[in-house]
Amino acid sequence: MQKTKVAILGAGFIANIHIESYHRFVPEAEIIAVYARDIRKAKTFAEKHHILKWNDDLNDIIQNSGCEVIDICLPNFLHFEATLKAAAADKHIIIEKPLSVTLEDADEMIAACKKAGVKLMYAEELCFAPKYERVRQMVNEGAIGDIYMLKQSERHSGPHSDWFYDINLSGGGVLMDMGCHAIAWFRWMLKNAKAKSVYATMSTVLHKERTKGEDNSVVIVEFENGVTAVAENSWAKHGGMDDKSEVYGTGGVVYADLFMGNASIAYSKSGYGYALEKADTTIGWTFPIFEEAFNQGYPHELKHFIECVQQNKEPLVTGEDGRAVLEIIYAAYASATEGKKIMLPFAPSVSKPIDLWLGSL
Amino acid sequence: MQKTKVAILGAGFIANIHIESYHRFVPEAEIIAVYARDIRKAKTFAEKHHILKWNDDLNDIIQNSGCEVIDICLPNFLHFEATLKAAAADKHIIIEKPLSVTLEDADEMIAACKKAGVKLMYAEELCFAPKYERVRQMVNEGAIGDIYMLKQSERHSGPHSDWFYDINLSGGGVLMDMGCHAIAWFRWMLKNAKAKSVYATMSTVLHKERTKGEDNSVVIVEFENGVTAVAENSWAKHGGMDDKSEVYGTGGVVYADLFMGNASIAYSKSGYGYALEKADTTIGWTFPIFEEAFNQGYPHELKHFIECVQQNKEPLVTGEDGRAVLEIIYAAYASATEGKKIMLPFAPSVSKPIDLWLGSL
Amino acid sequence: MQKTKVAILGAGFIANIHIESYHRFVPEAEIIAVYARDIRKAKTFAEKHHILKWNDDLNDIIQNSGCEVIDICLPNFLHFEATLKAAAADKHIIIEKPLSVTLEDADEMIAACKKAGVKLMYAEELCFAPKYERVRQMVNEGAIGDIYMLKQSERHSGPHSDWFYDINLSGGGVLMDMGCHAIAWFRWMLKNAKAKSVYATMSTVLHKERTKGEDNSVVIVEFENGVTAVAENSWAKHGGMDDKSEVYGTGGVVYADLFMGNASIAYSKSGYGYALEKADTTIGWTFPIFEEAFNQGYPHELKHFIECVQQNKEPLVTGEDGRAVLEIIYAAYASATEGKKIMLPFAPSVSKPIDLWLGSL
Amino acid sequence: MQKTKVAILGAGFIANIHIESYHRFVPEAEIIAVYARDIRKAKTFAEKHHILKWNDDLNDIIQNSGCEVIDICLPNFLHFEATLKAAAADKHIIIEKPLSVTLEDADEMIAACKKAGVKLMYAEELCFAPKYERVRQMVNEGAIGDIYMLKQSERHSGPHSDWFYDINLSGGGVLMDMGCHAIAWFRWMLKNAKAKSVYATMSTVLHKERTKGEDNSVVIVEFENGVTAVAENSWAKHGGMDDKSEVYGTGGVVYADLFMGNASIAYSKSGYGYALEKADTTIGWTFPIFEEAFNQGYPHELKHFIECVQQNKEPLVTGEDGRAVLEIIYAAYASATEGKKIMLPFAPSVSKPIDLWLGSL
Repeated sequence: MQKTKVAILGAGFIANIHIESYHRFVPEAEIIAVYARDIRKAKTFAEKHHILKWNDDLNDIIQNSGCEVIDICLPNFLHFEATLKAAAADKHIIIEKPLSVTLEDADEMIAACKKAGVKLMYAEELCFAPKYERVRQMVNEGAIGDIYMLKQSERHSGPHSDWFYDINLSGGGVLMDMGCHAIAWFRWMLKNAKAKSVYATMSTVLHKERTKGEDNSVVIVEFENGVTAVAENSWAKHGGMDDKSEVYGTGGVVYADLFMGNASIAYSKSGYGYALEKADTTIGWTFPIFEEAFNQGYPHELKHFIECVQQNKEPLVTGEDGRAVLEIIYAAYASATEGKKIMLPFAPSVSKPIDLWLGSL
Repeated sequence: MQKTKVAILGAGFIANIHIESYHRFVPEAEIIAVYARDIRKAKTFAEKHHILKWNDDLNDIIQNSGCEVIDICLPNFLHFEATLKAAAADKHIIIEKPLSVTLEDADEMIAACKKAGVKLMYAEELCFAPKYERVRQMVNEGAIGDIYMLKQSERHSGPHSDWFYDINLSGGGVLMDMGCHAIAWFRWMLKNAKAKSVYATMSTVLHKERTKGEDNSVVIVEFENGVTAVAENSWAKHGGMDDKSEVYGTGGVVYADLFMGNASIAYSKSGYGYALEKADTTIGWTFPIFEEAFNQGYPHELKHFIECVQQNKEPLVTGEDGRAVLEIIYAAYASATEGKKIMLPFAPSVSKPIDLWLGSL
Repeated sequence: MQKTKVAILGAGFIANIHIESYHRFVPEAEIIAVYARDIRKAKTFAEKHHILKWNDDLNDIIQNSGCEVIDICLPNFLHFEATLKAAAADKHIIIEKPLSVTLEDADEMIAACKKAGVKLMYAEELCFAPKYERVRQMVNEGAIGDIYMLKQSERHSGPHSDWFYDINLSGGGVLMDMGCHAIAWFRWMLKNAKAKSVYATMSTVLHKERTKGEDNSVVIVEFENGVTAVAENSWAKHGGMDDKSEVYGTGGVVYADLFMGNASIAYSKSGYGYALEKADTTIGWTFPIFEEAFNQGYPHELKHFIECVQQNKEPLVTGEDGRAVLEIIYAAYASATEGKKIMLPFAPSVSKPIDLWLGSL
Repeated sequence: MQKTKVAILGAGFIANIHIESYHRFVPEAEIIAVYARDIRKAKTFAEKHHILKWNDDLNDIIQNSGCEVIDICLPNFLHFEATLKAAAADKHIIIEKPLSVTLEDADEMIAACKKAGVKLMYAEELCFAPKYERVRQMVNEGAIGDIYMLKQSERHSGPHSDWFYDINLSGGGVLMDMGCHAIAWFRWMLKNAKAKSVYATMSTVLHKERTKGEDNSVVIVEFENGVTAVAENSWAKHGGMDDKSEVYGTGGVVYADLFMGNASIAYSKSGYGYALEKADTTIGWTFPIFEEAFNQGYPHELKHFIECVQQNKEPLVTGEDGRAVLEIIYAAYASATEGKKIMLPFAPSVSKPIDLWLGSL
């Protein structure tokens, strides 16, 4: 079988995770081109990862690289343009979360891909993280009876790149950035059951000087099947990345922790190279993690997407899932302002989701 | 110093914890009498714990036992009568949670004690649990900067006694029974900061055949100082008692787990005597706990209360705290029905709190 | 690059782990043939894993399958014959632990491979287990100063296959089966420093009815560089597979746990499919593991070996390492009988290592 | 019942732990006097703890304070003199570990107490630590079948006081200081089964500049009932005090950890007051412990000893137990030099145990 040719859009943090995943674990794919807005970053990335073609010309990479798949690892606000161009060029699309900034964009992206007959594959890695998939498997075997509550949390002390903190670019704060993981995972665990309502509370507690966006949020999603799901997200948690889930059922419980729950425990008087994502220090006690990309499910996810392209299969997680997540995020922002649960469907017209919380700026 | 004479009302689960705590750790107290509604239980309890006087006559025990302090370990619906009688007899009062079934009862109980000049000491042991107090101490030393979020959860698979499941007696389900711990602890950690609003969602997921009361709840309390507090409570969690807290601050985090986080880890092919409260089995892996009463803070709490009586000091946790907790519980039930956050103060007139969720029955 | 053709010898537990590892993670290899002593097992294995050629004729598989590499996943006592035949047929060799039953066999196997110019690659997966490699990396970055003590333990409740329990086939009990992992890992962590002496104590505590071999052992290896290393191994530990290491240094410590330290935590009233290797039950609390082969390092190890063949590189772990491990195992058995530390080198002539403990039978 | 009058000898680290234990948990005792070699320390201790009589005159405190019990919290090398004087004055004795420096001293101390008809109560707190006692209880209930292996370890980064590092005063290094805990606990778990042989390896790895004594040791004690017991002790482990045990049986296992296994988990950017004994820092991740004295069993132990005096009962842990521990320590030092297991009984005449390892200095 010929390798599937992939062009990566983006040369930042997540693009690096994707390419490590492809190179180590997805031999069915070949990364043939990279685009970045900054041509020096594109060059550096290409040289580091042995990619032949690199450019700051989006059209060129999409249309002329000879790729079959576009892997969009760009900031939120660039998802729309990249997707439409890729669809117009008949390229299948892998797209990082969140799907887009607005529901209108999401709808247009989904429609464009449908019209072009290309797959829009939503890269929510928690649906593939092997530890969480193990949990889902045992739950489906009846280990805990019927699920009645789900909890998922992702926390760290804040992203590095500036655009996250500019709500006009990002569309929102930590809920937009990390809450989408929890929401997608809830739907995934419940076999895409319909969400019924959303309640949220959020605030800016640590990065007040840097952003108007929320950096701590709690979101309660209620599903039509009776399940209550609680998402906790924070850019205000020191000590390193944290990603945990809890499943409560009528016949038992399962707790899974992707970082501290997978780590070694080390005490170092003097420190060392790297402990884990967003860790402040390696002096004293640390929880060094290993195989971070693998343990978060990136290779499994990308392998699946490439297989879908090769075998013309429906991907397990699609643009529609991404849209459903974004709708719940909209409702969460609105709820946080109104102080009441918002019923779904909910699709007001705003230029960015956080306007529903802060009012438009 | 003379020992303070205490009469215990109740001979059930919590009365046993109290008396173990007194006998092992509070030599300043002497338990001289026990009351139970069932005289055989009073007798058995008295014999087991070497208490001279035992009775099913409440008035007799309160008025004639010669006690200085009444320790109320009775079900919710008996708190009111016992408190008023104790106050009328000029006895100081230790009272288990929740304070009462209604806010009206609470107000009357507080007033009666104030008028009689007796202390109404609210027995919320989480304010004394040594592990949680260690957390509070380091937080007050600045370990984590400013608190922005608190979480507390208490879960097991349901109480044994039938009255819990009869909402006409208990006043509510798991929120009434265990959510009061979290809510009291939030106020305690925040130096009795004022709660501003309450949002809750709850359902009956496991004990549907046995009760109309909620057996799983999530409550979000927002405080005037900006802190968000999330209480999770369940009577639907198998595997043994669970009691955990998490403190999030601008300078760090602290996680404390009173049960699994204190336990040994054991694997037994054939099983053994007792692992921990509400554990279903001792076969396979278990988390056997030790010194359960001590680790939950009961001795520390009771020692403090007796000291307050002996030294005529203000107790750290009072009937007013219990009332504040009950008010938040009221708001939580109302919120669960209305689907919106309820602002405080909130003091509607109902015959029991859960009527605010279910409507009156 | 052409895929490297591999023939697997063996169709049991470890052969299945190897083939899962090849198929999922080592696309550079192609498994073209399988040999088993029982032709039905060979057939079943071949059909399950889509292998074209299968046979109970060892010579045929080695000589005629067209393979370049022979992967020996057979019981200890068949390692010698298979290796000599593979070397005689100019095939590179991957060989599972322990290398052989006797040092004489080991020397002959190493010599035969050297003479034939083929690689003898010793498959000690702990040298590749990603969590342990992460530990080694941080240790090499100076995280804990100078190592002064190492501990490694592997325990479960006993292997399934009967041959393990027949010391005339296996050569020894748990030390032979699992102690080799610890000993190899010690050498690996210490950059193949020379072991100086060995002390051991062992006994048969659980499987007395089934074997004369030891099922619990403690081995202390002292290295010339001053490091003390303690290996603890057991076939008498209920509750599932356990694999842990501890590194002590003048500047810190690191603890790594491959199973319980990677697992989810689940409570199931009724049980479910599979928790982890050698777990007795899935009822009650369990520690379900995920990606077991990956987390133990099998894919990393096999990928490395295939790379060595393709690039004609020296493998990181060789037959010489396997021989060094076996020598230490010899010394351990002798020490257990003599009650004193045995100095290295130590190469007495025995028909099987456990004779040094039990006397020849 | 009258309070039992106790005079404490010593005003250092362990004396402070004892007095906290008495004051908080042993109301049956009254501490009426304190002796220290440095009169300023005696005064400070007395003022801090409200003790009426304080002195640097040992005879005076023993003979004239009016005490019934002498609690010896002095360094090793002062145990002998204090015990003989206390026995001569007809005082019951509580004595901290290790019992004495030499076996001859131990024998004389035991004889003197027997002759005087006073109790010699060996303060090995691990025999009373509630978590470990919980383990012992479930083991005695049959939870794990028959014990075949015990492990116990105590580690930190080295004591503060200088005398520990002077082997002429201490008699030995970490084995003498902390290994006695493990050895006593092994005997305690096995109902004082007879130890048969001892093997040890030890070295000086961290405190080479400061002491000739061993600062890291591994000791294997084999018991006549077939149990293997492994004690690991270190003064070279950074990151705070560590105290763990593991029990392996034919029907299961139990793991208990007194420090990290009881702790909260905290991340602090800036640090705070105190985490746990011997912790280097409170910045970054820490494991703050609570109720340290209680969790290590000091109150339980002292309460038991005072009860024995009041009720004229045999203490659970006696001078004979302390002597048995010392004998095993002797054998361990000899084994470490000879490289072979030493059979018991073993009572060579040396001026200090470590001479058996280093030769006399």
